[in-house]
Amino acid sequence: MAWNTNLRWRLPLTCLLLQAALVVLFGVFVRYSPDADAHWIEEKGSGNVSSDLDNEFYYRYPSFQDVHVMIFVGFGFLMTFLQRYGYSSVGFNFLLAAFGIQWALLMQGWLHSYHDGYIFVGVENLINADFCVGSVCVAFGALLGKVSPLQLLIMTLFQVTLFSVNEFILLSLLKVKDAGGSMTIHTFGAYFGLTVTWILYRPNLYQSKERQSAVYHSDLFAMIGTLFLWMYWPSFNSAVSNHGDAQHRAAINTYCSLAACVLTAVALSSALHKKGKLDMVHIQNATLAGGVAVGTAAEMMLTPYGSLIVGFICGIVSTLGFVYLTPFLESHLRIQDTCGIHNLHGIPGIIGGIVGAVTAACANVHAYGQEGLAHAFDFELGDANWSPSMQGSFQAAGIFVSLAMALVGGIIVGIILKLPIWGQPADENCFDDTIYWEVPEEEKNEVFHPEDPTLKPSET
Amino acid sequence: MAWNTNLRWRLPLTCLLLQAALVVLFGVFVRYSPDADAHWIEEKGSGNVSSDLDNEFYYRYPSFQDVHVMIFVGFGFLMTFLQRYGYSSVGFNFLLAAFGIQWALLMQGWLHSYHDGYIFVGVENLINADFCVGSVCVAFGALLGKVSPLQLLIMTLFQVTLFSVNEFILLSLLKVKDAGGSMTIHTFGAYFGLTVTWILYRPNLYQSKERQSAVYHSDLFAMIGTLFLWMYWPSFNSAVSNHGDAQHRAAINTYCSLAACVLTAVALSSALHKKGKLDMVHIQNATLAGGVAVGTAAEMMLTPYGSLIVGFICGIVSTLGFVYLTPFLESHLRIQDTCGIHNLHGIPGIIGGIVGAVTAACANVHAYGQEGLAHAFDFELGDANWSPSMQGSFQAAGIFVSLAMALVGGIIVGIILKLPIWGQPADENCFDDTIYWEVPEEEKNEVFHPEDPTLKPSET
Amino acid sequence: MAWNTNLRWRLPLTCLLLQAALVVLFGVFVRYSPDADAHWIEEKGSGNVSSDLDNEFYYRYPSFQDVHVMIFVGFGFLMTFLQRYGYSSVGFNFLLAAFGIQWALLMQGWLHSYHDGYIFVGVENLINADFCVGSVCVAFGALLGKVSPLQLLIMTLFQVTLFSVNEFILLSLLKVKDAGGSMTIHTFGAYFGLTVTWILYRPNLYQSKERQSAVYHSDLFAMIGTLFLWMYWPSFNSAVSNHGDAQHRAAINTYCSLAACVLTAVALSSALHKKGKLDMVHIQNATLAGGVAVGTAAEMMLTPYGSLIVGFICGIVSTLGFVYLTPFLESHLRIQDTCGIHNLHGIPGIIGGIVGAVTAACANVHAYGQEGLAHAFDFELGDANWSPSMQGSFQAAGIFVSLAMALVGGIIVGIILKLPIWGQPADENCFDDTIYWEVPEEEKNEVFHPEDPTLKPSET
Repeated sequence: MAWNTNLRWRLPLTCLLLQAALVVLFGVFVRYSPDADAHWIEEKGSGNVSSDLDNEFYYRYPSFQDVHVMIFVGFGFLMTFLQRYGYSSVGFNFLLAAFGIQWALLMQGWLHSYHDGYIFVGVENLINADFCVGSVCVAFGALLGKVSPLQLLIMTLFQVTLFSVNEFILLSLLKVKDAGGSMTIHTFGAYFGLTVTWILYRPNLYQSKERQSAVYHSDLFAMIGTLFLWMYWPSFNSAVSNHGDAQHRAAINTYCSLAACVLTAVALSSALHKKGKLDMVHIQNATLAGGVAVGTAAEMMLTPYGSLIVGFICGIVSTLGFVYLTPFLESHLRIQDTCGIHNLHGIPGIIGGIVGAVTAACANVHAYGQEGLAHAFDFELGDANWSPSMQGSFQAAGIFVSLAMALVGGIIVGIILKLPIWGQPADENCFDDTIYWEVPEEEKNEVFHPEDPTLKPSET
Repeated sequence: MAWNTNLRWRLPLTCLLLQAALVVLFGVFVRYSPDADAHWIEEKGSGNVSSDLDNEFYYRYPSFQDVHVMIFVGFGFLMTFLQRYGYSSVGFNFLLAAFGIQWALLMQGWLHSYHDGYIFVGVENLINADFCVGSVCVAFGALLGKVSPLQLLIMTLFQVTLFSVNEFILLSLLKVKDAGGSMTIHTFGAYFGLTVTWILYRPNLYQSKERQSAVYHSDLFAMIGTLFLWMYWPSFNSAVSNHGDAQHRAAINTYCSLAACVLTAVALSSALHKKGKLDMVHIQNATLAGGVAVGTAAEMMLTPYGSLIVGFICGIVSTLGFVYLTPFLESHLRIQDTCGIHNLHGIPGIIGGIVGAVTAACANVHAYGQEGLAHAFDFELGDANWSPSMQGSFQAAGIFVSLAMALVGGIIVGIILKLPIWGQPADENCFDDTIYWEVPEEEKNEVFHPEDPTLKPSET
Repeated sequence: MAWNTNLRWRLPLTCLLLQAALVVLFGVFVRYSPDADAHWIEEKGSGNVSSDLDNEFYYRYPSFQDVHVMIFVGFGFLMTFLQRYGYSSVGFNFLLAAFGIQWALLMQGWLHSYHDGYIFVGVENLINADFCVGSVCVAFGALLGKVSPLQLLIMTLFQVTLFSVNEFILLSLLKVKDAGGSMTIHTFGAYFGLTVTWILYRPNLYQSKERQSAVYHSDLFAMIGTLFLWMYWPSFNSAVSNHGDAQHRAAINTYCSLAACVLTAVALSSALHKKGKLDMVHIQNATLAGGVAVGTAAEMMLTPYGSLIVGFICGIVSTLGFVYLTPFLESHLRIQDTCGIHNLHGIPGIIGGIVGAVTAACANVHAYGQEGLAHAFDFELGDANWSPSMQGSFQAAGIFVSLAMALVGGIIVGIILKLPIWGQPADENCFDDTIYWEVPEEEKNEVFHPEDPTLKPSET
């Protein structure tokens, strides 16, 4: 099982070829959206464009930046909790996301913003590209420490493609609402990643067990990721909602759900420890489950207390998952889920899909108003073809479509990634930066007790 | 003094009960504000609501996110400077803030946004809830390392309540202006916290002295907190100001005051060290005093150089406080102020209240314009009942009300927290994460070795 | 060469004098811009000011905050990669930036916002002051570890002055476009810093070689800086662009260029290592070169694929620079460039200037539209004096002016900083926080020299 992990030619060539292909495809297809184009000024006054100050940029860009921080700092640092895998967590996340957003601009562009042979790109496309990559970051969490950067690039290539198709089926064909992507991002991303790690099962992973835990400082670095994810999640769930009340509401609902989730995650973490002590893994992860689970329904009239209930439940479920389900998955189903994404994105994503379906099915004129209902669910006022229960059914169908895409796609991509050509680490070298990174010499000695005469190298 | 610190049942039950109560109260009282409600669309065109793009969300949300970062990352990481208390600093701050913002939405809602039996919540409420919790984070700074998470939850429950009442007295009854909360947040929060820590005085705290200092990396983590507080403080002081020039001015004044404060804090830090070396404690804290002290007057016509003078003075006063006052308070007044909040929030808060009172008393038509004056101080044009000197007197009264509330409230809450039922640590276990957290084993050996009998100090 | 590094009187007096001078100058010259002034309300309805919601604040402030984070957290933490220089990296950057923004408000104010004897300050001035200080942060990167805080303050005083003059020549006299400051900030800042470090050449710097590298955790801290710079760079390059499409386009172009740059930097980093391993230095720095190089042309119709090409090239060039050019500069040209700013800001800055000149020279009515062209390059429609090729020539001239200012200014300032009165460290004490900072005792033992047999614990 000791493959060649020297990526000297494979990684550079892959990066350069992918980037060159992206340049060509951008050259052929990608243009500025009208309100990012210098011709915009001539269109002002005509139509409903009244002023430079009404540019979409001002209404989406602050949310975009918050989402951007979540993808690069949030996910990147959340995964630095491992003691010797910080470079890879932040660095590989950086690499795959930088590639993924470009490929997502194309894939999502072809499916959603394609007119007259061109993809027109504006700030909303940038947000959606970040969203798409978010699902890859989720899947990376399951594989963390066990794959090479080359494998991650290949996975990103396929996962972005599958994500875009799945998103197209849900949003454009099934007319599903999924503001914060409980289904498209979290459910799809989590079960895709879990399927891939199931295919890539490593029976001898215990050989690198000693590096699979945190040290004091790595847990603090991970909290940087947790907090930026937690704080900016209201922006995530509201970033592409309709302007006005929908965006405002999505932020409030997410804020409420996340706050409730912290208290119940802390409660369960303490209750499940024999001395009542808190576990950093739960604080870093389960506190975020409320944001995942309120993703679909965030822009709906979920009500603030509805959001609190969602958060309440998810903090409990997610922490229980970390304590009981993750070990079970590893020992009985051969699913090695490094970051426990099943508890943070998998189950909460499905809960989010269900909450969204139920909330949509319960929508009515009393809660939304006549026009408000039509606006929220995007149908023509008086359109007899639309009914809340139908919307609810389609929402529910969206969950199953996402799961099916994730499972089938995950199996195929997992098999591709199993080929022994990608420079993946041997079992005893997992969770170790030194395989793919130049690591400072003295530090290697330092952390591993070099001067401690009671410890021999073989023990560290 | 060795109480049982196993919180296995007390902490989970408290969290779950508090959160369940919040769900019920939200269900009864909390609804979306009109511009976060789906009915909004039907109101457009009527009244002064013209478009989805005029939604309050777009004018407050970026400031809200900056404030949010200050509360969770700013305060959380600022307190990680202790060598073995990083989990608790970030984690307990996370817990108390997540609880506090929900309770503050209710308390402030009842007092400020209550109509027809409901509290209507929008983005401005979220900012105010964060502000309220800011005062709890301040008080936590005095208690850091000496209290259990259970005590913090109880304190948050009471302090949010008292904060809301005090804020109501100042803003609604005394018609005081306090944009950045020099009085309501900082003065109240600091003296409340100092009173509580005075009641909880620990005569044998020297037993955990060796953990009460920083290590190299913990100081860098703390700088993350400092910088995010420093950078986003202009958003903090301007977040709930009147739209337009007031908000714009508040940001500029805070920017100026903070910049000046850095130079004088550095100057004093070096001057007060016998070899002219800088002290991280001063750089982490005293550089922020300018933001506190300009809080009340930020939205007034303080002028940019007025702001510089405020920052100039506060950088000096705050650094002097860390060097001379904090040790004096501990040795003579039995006030153990872990983070030195008296120097960062206490004195600068009072200075801020005074600066606000003086600036208000000096307000005139020349500086503000006729309409501008009425708009800034919120009275009807031509109202003979309002005068600058009266406004100044009320502002000054606000300082004393805040101090009185803080002292009386702090004594009562302190006595409650002194009860031996909250799982507080023994004196020799203060400032130690291992009491309440599952801490990685190897790291404990590595950094510390105090309890490792095989290692003599000379070997480390 | 062992000067007195005790700054006890020199540093405090310099800080206090500079700050006092700033207070006086602000008092004489600085006033609020109209839309930050309380008189604003009276002007509404007259002219084109229609509402508080049209206040410039709302269209610039979110970008300002992003830029602010880049200057203080981005640059500050990027430089923490050195193992024992974290306090100084973050702390001195904080100090010089806090001084620099105040002095820049004055210098830029006199040259750009001076009317009737006053400088009128609004949010755009705050952004420009941050930009100006950005060039000082760049220059600091070359000097990191080898200068005293006093030297940095003196350098900031001069560099801000020179920056403002250079910026005035470029933007006001040559009518050059430079949205993201490829020329004014990066080219000027880098070559200024390189010239100063050339003058301050230390032949015996090898004596502190062991502290000139990173340790594991310091590299992770540096990644915080890298990522915040990378994520917020689109805000940087678009912050002062024309409202509407120009700002929108600048963000998109920067996003594209940065994404491409990551892949080619990773490719080259791996290809240039004999085992194909990645080097953190490249990931921390070369991934940002795309943001620098797209600075001038960001607001032009560069097209998304044009941006990708710029990023593609810069990732390669910058990484090659780190591997081959930096050692060459040190050994053959006596230029000791601690952070490799020549590769991140120098060459990419010049590339950015060239890209801008070429893009401007290629501007035409087809790409911009009639009005769009006039709006983008700020000339009267029908003005026969303006032509794309002329604009391109002036753009190119801007590069040479910036280089000339940097070289001449750098030599003069370098000679001033060489005077033996500024408390600079001896060669063997470079890259060491303990010279200027009170550093925790136990940590000094712990992190340092564990394997150094010449040091007994009692000596450290």
